[in-house]
Amino acid sequence: MEHDPGGERYTVDHRLSDADHNIHSKWDGSLDPVLTVEPGEIVRFECRDAVDRQVDVETTAEEVTDVSFDPVHPLTGPVYVEGAEPGDVLEVELLDLQHKGWGYNLYFPGEMGLGLLPEDFDDPGIHVWDLEGDVGAFVNGIEVPLDPFPGVIGNAPGEAGEHDTLPPRDVGGNMDVKHMTAGSTVYLPVEVEGALFSTGDCHAAQGDGEVCVTGVEAPMFVTARFSVRKEMDVEQPQLHTQGPFTPTGVDEPTYATTGIDPDLMEATRKATRHMIDHLHGNRGLTRGEAYLLCSAAMDLKVSEVVDAPNWTVTAYVADSLFPE
Amino acid sequence: MEHDPGGERYTVDHRLSDADHNIHSKWDGSLDPVLTVEPGEIVRFECRDAVDRQVDVETTAEEVTDVSFDPVHPLTGPVYVEGAEPGDVLEVELLDLQHKGWGYNLYFPGEMGLGLLPEDFDDPGIHVWDLEGDVGAFVNGIEVPLDPFPGVIGNAPGEAGEHDTLPPRDVGGNMDVKHMTAGSTVYLPVEVEGALFSTGDCHAAQGDGEVCVTGVEAPMFVTARFSVRKEMDVEQPQLHTQGPFTPTGVDEPTYATTGIDPDLMEATRKATRHMIDHLHGNRGLTRGEAYLLCSAAMDLKVSEVVDAPNWTVTAYVADSLFPE
Repeated sequence: MEHDPGGERYTVDHRLSDADHNIHSKWDGSLDPVLTVEPGEIVRFECRDAVDRQVDVETTAEEVTDVSFDPVHPLTGPVYVEGAEPGDVLEVELLDLQHKGWGYNLYFPGEMGLGLLPEDFDDPGIHVWDLEGDVGAFVNGIEVPLDPFPGVIGNAPGEAGEHDTLPPRDVGGNMDVKHMTAGSTVYLPVEVEGALFSTGDCHAAQGDGEVCVTGVEAPMFVTARFSVRKEMDVEQPQLHTQGPFTPTGVDEPTYATTGIDPDLMEATRKATRHMIDHLHGNRGLTRGEAYLLCSAAMDLKVSEVVDAPNWTVTAYVADSLFPE
Repeated sequence: MEHDPGGERYTVDHRLSDADHNIHSKWDGSLDPVLTVEPGEIVRFECRDAVDRQVDVETTAEEVTDVSFDPVHPLTGPVYVEGAEPGDVLEVELLDLQHKGWGYNLYFPGEMGLGLLPEDFDDPGIHVWDLEGDVGAFVNGIEVPLDPFPGVIGNAPGEAGEHDTLPPRDVGGNMDVKHMTAGSTVYLPVEVEGALFSTGDCHAAQGDGEVCVTGVEAPMFVTARFSVRKEMDVEQPQLHTQGPFTPTGVDEPTYATTGIDPDLMEATRKATRHMIDHLHGNRGLTRGEAYLLCSAAMDLKVSEVVDAPNWTVTAYVADSLFPE
């Protein structure tokens, strides 16, 4: 018997280690399941980090350039859920997420074209995070509360063949929705028999946007209970969550920058650039550190999409992250 | 002497009524100021509603079609702030916002092309809100907490001539950032001598996105203190705020829908459509009521903009809005 974070007891019915035979790195509806479960059963997934152990606690910024994208993302699964048929919805109750004490976030050299602002950062950067309980340590005494979640959580697509894990799809996948935390329930459309669910790419913390292309990437255990919802009609994933909506869980003093532009993505870039400028100018961070912190802890809201021809996106970083 | 929401005493130095001679509806750096203030002084602005009194508590959906956009937005001002020069930043401390007990939100017929989803709503709709203290009453026992803010808050643009008030610009304007509430401080770039600050288009509540093109529009009093920040360097508006980040001010159970698409605006549309479907299917609202509620109380986050080629936008509506 184990406990979920709410104190409710539950029994893990199945455990999947992160051994090679439980890992795949393409979505493919023709893969053999590594496990078959009945609705109501609970599975504990051991998940590798996003780049499959190419980074460790000693990795330097120079070495980031050597990281290969070939193994991205190593996913644990697929799990076949009895009774799940195309058109159904797979209900995934996230009962628990446990990190292993460390994580990293990094950005690649701009020439690779990854992240929201590749043109602003020629050279790569990395921060290795010491994760202690619910807190991750950044530079300059900055601490980020941890709210772990799986960046990738999804079912196999119905379309035949192998599919890259980078983009999210109607069946979920690499959605990077930071509120799919323990205690949340995720609803995923089913497109193949048995759903063929997989998860991985866990983040100990992440800002909305995941702007530098990584959250606080961390190997982790994900415990989830599965149900099949025949009556639900969901075109793309939905969820019920309790947040977190701020670092402390309550309204708190927060600095925000607007990005105003006729293109919504450019408005997002502007808001993020303005926040990086602010953190650099007022919080003593290098621009690279600011980019990493934004990706780990900045929230991004669509403030308005109706005041043509200019839209407003707003980026938020709470004061509570910084030492007094 | 009056009180601000934090209990700090302040004295209002100047009052501007919403009489015609204090109202303008175009941004124009050549307008004569209706008031000149010293830095540190406090002004109480009386602001008309967004469509300048064409709507009252008896307006019906059929009559929405007759609403003219010509007077949008009636703004109170402009105020000349002594010492403010192009390149400076105008600091605006929002001390207090007071509604007058009622407001409305509405959407126009789809053929007018306004709002995020004009193609989904052929006919217009309206809800007149009874505003009691901190709560606004919607249909079916739904209550929305009020956190009033000025939808339009800005300085005159440096570019000569008259400018439409609908789009926000580098100097601010119709930003519709719902966190510019009492207790927040807004930083606005100055492009003309004296800044020529105006405000209006107040919302008693608004969701991120303001998806149906109106928040809870309400005539209101806005009390603000002005300062000139010579040392700040801000390209587009910034703010320091305490939220609200959830309806109750604390993390709370919330339903969320994702929108996943290679175009960020289309992802925003999808997340909103999915939420309207959810509110219609599970909360007993008509689609029109759901659209109005989303515009008044749904939050919109950019969950990821780095998992090419598909981006994820997520829409949130808290359970606490609904009666048990």
